[in-house]
Amino acid sequence: MTFLSIENKYKIILASQSPRRQNLLKELKLNFEIKIKEIEEVYPPELKKEEIPVYLAELKALAFNNDLQNNELVITADTIVWVNNSVLGKPTSYQNAFSMLETLSNNKHTVYTGVCLKTKNTAKTFWASTDVYFRKLEKQEIEYYLEHYKPYDKAGSYGIQEWIGYIGIEKIEGSYFNVMGLPIQKLYDELKKFNT
Amino acid sequence: MTFLSIENKYKIILASQSPRRQNLLKELKLNFEIKIKEIEEVYPPELKKEEIPVYLAELKALAFNNDLQNNELVITADTIVWVNNSVLGKPTSYQNAFSMLETLSNNKHTVYTGVCLKTKNTAKTFWASTDVYFRKLEKQEIEYYLEHYKPYDKAGSYGIQEWIGYIGIEKIEGSYFNVMGLPIQKLYDELKKFNT
Repeated sequence: MTFLSIENKYKIILASQSPRRQNLLKELKLNFEIKIKEIEEVYPPELKKEEIPVYLAELKALAFNNDLQNNELVITADTIVWVNNSVLGKPTSYQNAFSMLETLSNNKHTVYTGVCLKTKNTAKTFWASTDVYFRKLEKQEIEYYLEHYKPYDKAGSYGIQEWIGYIGIEKIEGSYFNVMGLPIQKLYDELKKFNT
Repeated sequence: MTFLSIENKYKIILASQSPRRQNLLKELKLNFEIKIKEIEEVYPPELKKEEIPVYLAELKALAFNNDLQNNELVITADTIVWVNNSVLGKPTSYQNAFSMLETLSNNKHTVYTGVCLKTKNTAKTFWASTDVYFRKLEKQEIEYYLEHYKPYDKAGSYGIQEWIGYIGIEKIEGSYFNVMGLPIQKLYDELKKFNT
């Protein structure tokens, strides 16, 4: 049972390989399938903050344009970490990941997620942001985390639901699940409202 | 492996039946055992906000007073929900739980957890608070949640990590894990500092 009557109207598709997003969407007790279209995640360099994941979510949705059936609704999403006025994506190496975590240490950053709901004839985009405050991380703590958790698939090189999140994050302001990659409460509201 | 050298000095005991607290403590990669002493959770009526869980955490620790060995450290904790200038504990009935969730709906509340670390000769108490903002909950959403999740062991009648948390909570300010019953980042810091 779900409160989302949209399920009667559309077949829901989640276009994300992230197991975190897949698990969060399951919590809405919604039937959905996963379908991925590979795209190059390139965005105009002048974009800032939420503009980046909003752009990329829409780009990911655009890739479905020609394939959507009348009864299909695709959900795409993109998440970035914004700190010291620039963006952190997924790390490319151990050194890169180490340096990202040093940047986050003793600092505040903001996690932005853009989400796009797309059908054949319409689309709705929204986003959410959460401020995250790390305490000062010790060098050994960063090393331990990188060796044991290998966060190479994660924007900003960390998962809030992993050891480093438990021991290092003092507080957040906003949605916890947004930091995991999907602002699930907003998504639920948008799906409830989605009517065309 | 852990960064908590305290493990070499003390046998850690967690005095809590809450599976959520037990799982959170496991995330610190710490060896511990669980030992419960039943006490009556009664506190002076003039206490407010954090004073209540601090008092109850200390009361729970006191129950171990005569039994602790020199090499034992016990962790006790208590969590309350504070809303509209009064306290919500665990619900006593379906009606009571329903009315608690109606109170939380479209409202801000604060979750306070008190934690006590106690050895034979010393003790350290600390607390954390997190503000939680529920959007307006529909009557049917509350009914669905109570019927399917039966949150009768939870202060305030909800678990943030359950369906109602996913769909109903707009944002939090503070530690997410504190809302689950244990401010795990603060606890890690206090265990690291604990030296007597």
